[in-house]
Amino acid sequence: MKAEIICIGDELLLGQIMETNSAWIAQQLSKVSVPVVQIATVADEEKAILEALESASNRAELVIITGGLGPTRDDVTKKTAAKYFNTTLIKNDEVLFHVKGIFSKLGYEMPAINRSQADVLACCTPLFNKVGTAPGMWIDEKEKVYIFLPGVPYEMKYLMEYEVLPRLQKLYIKDIYRHEYILTVGIGESVLAQKIEDVEEALPENISIAYLPKIGMVRLRLSGKGDKAAVLQRQLEEIKRRISEKLGAAIVAYDNVEFEEVLIHEMTKAGVSLATAESCTGGKIAANLTKYAGAGKVFLGSVVSYANEVKTKVLKVPEETLQNQGAVSEETVIAMVKEAKELFGSDYAVATSGIAGPTGGTQEKPVGTVWIAVKGKYKLRTKAFHFQNNRQINIARTTTQALLMLWDLFREEKIENPENNLLNS
Amino acid sequence: MKAEIICIGDELLLGQIMETNSAWIAQQLSKVSVPVVQIATVADEEKAILEALESASNRAELVIITGGLGPTRDDVTKKTAAKYFNTTLIKNDEVLFHVKGIFSKLGYEMPAINRSQADVLACCTPLFNKVGTAPGMWIDEKEKVYIFLPGVPYEMKYLMEYEVLPRLQKLYIKDIYRHEYILTVGIGESVLAQKIEDVEEALPENISIAYLPKIGMVRLRLSGKGDKAAVLQRQLEEIKRRISEKLGAAIVAYDNVEFEEVLIHEMTKAGVSLATAESCTGGKIAANLTKYAGAGKVFLGSVVSYANEVKTKVLKVPEETLQNQGAVSEETVIAMVKEAKELFGSDYAVATSGIAGPTGGTQEKPVGTVWIAVKGKYKLRTKAFHFQNNRQINIARTTTQALLMLWDLFREEKIENPENNLLNS
Repeated sequence: MKAEIICIGDELLLGQIMETNSAWIAQQLSKVSVPVVQIATVADEEKAILEALESASNRAELVIITGGLGPTRDDVTKKTAAKYFNTTLIKNDEVLFHVKGIFSKLGYEMPAINRSQADVLACCTPLFNKVGTAPGMWIDEKEKVYIFLPGVPYEMKYLMEYEVLPRLQKLYIKDIYRHEYILTVGIGESVLAQKIEDVEEALPENISIAYLPKIGMVRLRLSGKGDKAAVLQRQLEEIKRRISEKLGAAIVAYDNVEFEEVLIHEMTKAGVSLATAESCTGGKIAANLTKYAGAGKVFLGSVVSYANEVKTKVLKVPEETLQNQGAVSEETVIAMVKEAKELFGSDYAVATSGIAGPTGGTQEKPVGTVWIAVKGKYKLRTKAFHFQNNRQINIARTTTQALLMLWDLFREEKIENPENNLLNS
Repeated sequence: MKAEIICIGDELLLGQIMETNSAWIAQQLSKVSVPVVQIATVADEEKAILEALESASNRAELVIITGGLGPTRDDVTKKTAAKYFNTTLIKNDEVLFHVKGIFSKLGYEMPAINRSQADVLACCTPLFNKVGTAPGMWIDEKEKVYIFLPGVPYEMKYLMEYEVLPRLQKLYIKDIYRHEYILTVGIGESVLAQKIEDVEEALPENISIAYLPKIGMVRLRLSGKGDKAAVLQRQLEEIKRRISEKLGAAIVAYDNVEFEEVLIHEMTKAGVSLATAESCTGGKIAANLTKYAGAGKVFLGSVVSYANEVKTKVLKVPEETLQNQGAVSEETVIAMVKEAKELFGSDYAVATSGIAGPTGGTQEKPVGTVWIAVKGKYKLRTKAFHFQNNRQINIARTTTQALLMLWDLFREEKIENPENNLLNS
């Protein structure tokens, strides 16, 4: 069974809203071995929706459509679907009761406009939406399955999780697909490709390798297709083993996890704690770490010292340092990282200070100039970076580089001091 | 001229990487009045790419293709394009020189694998990529334009900005498209729709309204099409005026800006400063504000007090409060917000503490329980929220609600104290 996803909404075609639903749906389908062959984003227009449905049915047996189910006039998905399936819309009392209930819980009467949300295709199985007002719809038609879901991400996710995926798992799925991931840091895509050239040349027909580069890291994805799960898994394990022989310490994880999660996990195992002192990253390092459950086992806290007075008052950076060397200097990040470690009583600390842009640069220190310091249990490291002109990219790069410097120092100290396993300060 | 975007990459169909290029490209094209009619995401496979090119050419005069131009084996875009345009790949010496130069700057010799990056379609105008190794390609074919760009976002953005958009602006563009935006906070989508029902019913044929809801806010987009820019603009202004009569204070901005930018701008105008004390949001509020240039005029800094010891030591939350009322309590966020204001010497402060999940909940305080406090120049506000089970959604909701509470308090104090214009502490 192959799937195709259609996302409906003018706002997506204007780039006004980032379309994130299809990536999430694709991840879920991949877990139940249903590959997505194409994703189409189309306008809130009858013609575009009809064409997309037609075209998707030619490639896939499962079509998931999101968006355009709201009560407002710009949402045309339901009446267009009725036309496509040559059926009508009927009022579903159970859905109507539910929508009224949502409003009455909030202390309102249901606006008249929301009555239309209880309309569903006559040929569908309605999917009850407990977290919103737009129901989903499941349609079996000519040995294909069409599923309509709301475009609001958490409503779509709720329906996928509780209504769609359990039903899909009951369907017959022929081919088995498996993916394995290897996360590497510190080596660029082309150098990596050269290092594992032999492995790639000797790959069996049914297995492929893809390179997924991000700032400072590359994820390798091994994809396999077969009919026996155990055989496929053995093949993939063997290739993973060969790759790990070639790449060694550049590999940080064999799971499909984020680098921050690996860092938290390894630091938790070593029983060490972390604090940050952030100027140009403005809390982004802290936010990136605390995004993940379990961060609290390692991460104690942060001082975001955006204003210079906060650097002197809270982080005790000497006035003279700011005056003589400036806020973006090696001396400043050293003072910041030392005080962060002291103030929070942490084993490790990182500090950032830079000119994120687009303004604030000078001839001597142009936009993109960044200093990072990392302090561990034994050592202190500093490094200057010269990024470019884009504020958000500069913040992202600084965040990643700070965590990479932390990772390197942490691993080094762990290897050099195996006896105490980094358990004592 | 209408455009279509094709994104190529297996990783996108697996949901492994979030496809963000098309939204950005769509925004840029919208600025030069080129509407995007469809976006397709397809696999790194000859058949899929050929079909997508064919299908896009039937709907659009401009086709922008991103991804699959890398040096590794999984990238097949160039040879597939050669087949589609019935041409060959030729080595471009200028590109080769550039790619070698990039490696030599980094102190490496160019890996052999990267030689292929200098191959371009014989029929194309190469687009030189100064920030990466994969060149773009511009192809004029049967009165249509095809543009191939790398998938790495900052390389794609560089080429769009410096090579593609300037050339496109020279092309003849017939219809004029204009969009106007109204950002509202605190009213749900359906209630909003009811309030402006009369305006929607009286809309002229060439203008439409779309609802773009996010957590706690709805953006309205007015889209108009016409042949005279001045006439169209007058029509849109008149509809904006009618809507603003209906919605009043719920409107925070008439531009296509983010709520955080409005907050920074208005607080800058009032000459007031802001600090945050964040527990469950883990730095996300600070990061969301500092994402925007100009944040430094208002935002002084933050203490991310993830560990309880940081709450007591740095933010002076009394031990007894943590023991008796708990870290997630009204008393705790009040203590946090007071000390944040004191420590940073700011006019406004916000504090958050909650159980983001997925673990850490109790019967009395389940996952999703959050307290927020906001302190202004004169008043203190607190509020409890009961969100659901998803960690990242809980962090996002808390971040937005904290900023909405701040906005309300700031506006209230500004209205009640017009004489000092909030300029003195």
